[in-house]
Amino acid sequence: MNNRIRIGIVGYGNLGRGVEAAVTNSPDMELVGVFSRRNPDSVTTLTGVAVYPYDILLSAENDLNEKIENHIPDIDVLIICAGSATDLPTMTPQLASIYNVVDSFDTHANIPEHLNAVEMAAIPAGKTAVISTGWDPGLFSLARLYANAALPNGSDYTFWGRGVSQGHSDAIRRIEGVLDARQYTVPIQAAMDRVRSGETPDLTTREKHLRECYVVTEDGADLARIENEIKTMPNYFADYDTTVTFISAEELASEHAGLPHGGSVLRSGKTGLDKEYANTIEFKLDLESNPCFTGSMLTACARAAYRMNEDGDVGCKTVFDIPPILMLPGCREEIIAHML
Amino acid sequence: MNNRIRIGIVGYGNLGRGVEAAVTNSPDMELVGVFSRRNPDSVTTLTGVAVYPYDILLSAENDLNEKIENHIPDIDVLIICAGSATDLPTMTPQLASIYNVVDSFDTHANIPEHLNAVEMAAIPAGKTAVISTGWDPGLFSLARLYANAALPNGSDYTFWGRGVSQGHSDAIRRIEGVLDARQYTVPIQAAMDRVRSGETPDLTTREKHLRECYVVTEDGADLARIENEIKTMPNYFADYDTTVTFISAEELASEHAGLPHGGSVLRSGKTGLDKEYANTIEFKLDLESNPCFTGSMLTACARAAYRMNEDGDVGCKTVFDIPPILMLPGCREEIIAHML
Repeated sequence: MNNRIRIGIVGYGNLGRGVEAAVTNSPDMELVGVFSRRNPDSVTTLTGVAVYPYDILLSAENDLNEKIENHIPDIDVLIICAGSATDLPTMTPQLASIYNVVDSFDTHANIPEHLNAVEMAAIPAGKTAVISTGWDPGLFSLARLYANAALPNGSDYTFWGRGVSQGHSDAIRRIEGVLDARQYTVPIQAAMDRVRSGETPDLTTREKHLRECYVVTEDGADLARIENEIKTMPNYFADYDTTVTFISAEELASEHAGLPHGGSVLRSGKTGLDKEYANTIEFKLDLESNPCFTGSMLTACARAAYRMNEDGDVGCKTVFDIPPILMLPGCREEIIAHML
Repeated sequence: MNNRIRIGIVGYGNLGRGVEAAVTNSPDMELVGVFSRRNPDSVTTLTGVAVYPYDILLSAENDLNEKIENHIPDIDVLIICAGSATDLPTMTPQLASIYNVVDSFDTHANIPEHLNAVEMAAIPAGKTAVISTGWDPGLFSLARLYANAALPNGSDYTFWGRGVSQGHSDAIRRIEGVLDARQYTVPIQAAMDRVRSGETPDLTTREKHLRECYVVTEDGADLARIENEIKTMPNYFADYDTTVTFISAEELASEHAGLPHGGSVLRSGKTGLDKEYANTIEFKLDLESNPCFTGSMLTACARAAYRMNEDGDVGCKTVFDIPPILMLPGCREEIIAHML
């Protein structure tokens, strides 16, 4: 293919590697390089693709010659694989003023503000940005939207897991005496069964999910104190039934190395003139690698961002704004003929 | 609300009544009337909304005065609730040359041809048509598309049921000696379990679904002949394990009056550079009334058709072409803030 979409990856953690795998396995795409704030010489990519300093992306804004001198090919879309807490709020608007971009900004409460900042950057630059994509926000958001469109009279439920929450694992690691930790978010089967049966219960936080923690400690650490600090940690654990299991570093490495995740979006609702018919809709994911699946979804959205930009549809978009067909390679006629 | 979307329903069977219920329960819509090829005096609507002769819709093309004289208010979108076999192939293009329209054309093999005919009618008229929507084609198609976008390397499976297939029930009713019948399509649990576990088996038609038939016969009918005719009927039953149970008209009325349906779209696929991680995606519907749910989805697509037309986006569309947010009432900022 001559007109492959040229992708750059910004940030090279688990998610960056997931995107690298997804882009490499997409025949309509070409991976141009990885851009990192670390010393490029210290970063080795899975595929051997080149690593460039992050700053070079920004220099393109003012000095095209420098960009060419540094042998960076043109980039159609940058996929930004950085953290929502501190990186993306500044990084995505900055990059959207120069490139088409995709990010996975997932601080739900701040999405409107982020959308606005990215819109203000992308519009004058004539660029297209897709923000807050992945699976939640992303595919789960789409499941909620379509279920609400088809069943306006009903109740929504989202269950996450069983899967590793990296944010909760990190919170445990910050406790004194803890060397490493893995936290699994576990949906409560009885609650899911009630919703699947068509009930619309009011469920508390504690009734929906459990939290299982596997913790490696320093020799001689005060286990009772650590367990108590975990179980009473506000926001993260205090509102849940939480179990803490102390294990060895070896067991953590052998039994808890993966990053599986998943969950279900459920909507239970009534149709009929007198709302006499019960219905349930469920969208369920079971993922052996959260970062690889998220990376795959970001890659599909990069395809859409490129095509929207080619069509002159600029500004900040979410998955709600993207005609679904733009996410798939191939032509519309074939997709309609084979998939509708 | 002053600017409610004005909807007309064409055809008044089970699906037409489902749309009537959905539009009536949509605060942003107003039901203008039902248009029928039957004598309007013979049709009584659930809500008491007026019934008009179908021909009046076509007369609007040539004679606007006649339309006004007959007191038909302006219509923003017509939802066409007619059969795919003989009605929609001519009706949808004809109406799309005068109105924005939505249909549920579901003869999968003929969708490209239908799309083209509707496109040729809608484009010169500046109208927007959404074809082939409902749940399959419709929501199930969207589930297939998004699952393929997120998991390009994998296999698709669609299981229908347990639910009533009206086409198969009709086929049984045409057999000599049969007074009435209900046919349930039943997915085979063992096959679904294999796919849900991440396997990608090659499944034959017989391995995916059973067909259960409940049949009411004339007094003295030859039951052995009827059972044999059902089980050997090409396309409909011959490729399936089929059970036939003869019951009374009373039992059919008391135990099989509803039109439930549903099913699952599953995709099982691998991510990772070496395709080392297994993933499954499932979209599942459990519907107490197939026509009411289908009607609800057609109504959401009528909202999208109206908005696309307002934006100048004319021609023939499928659910693949519709930015999802256009299906929901309310403003973009609120939907993004609460649902993404």
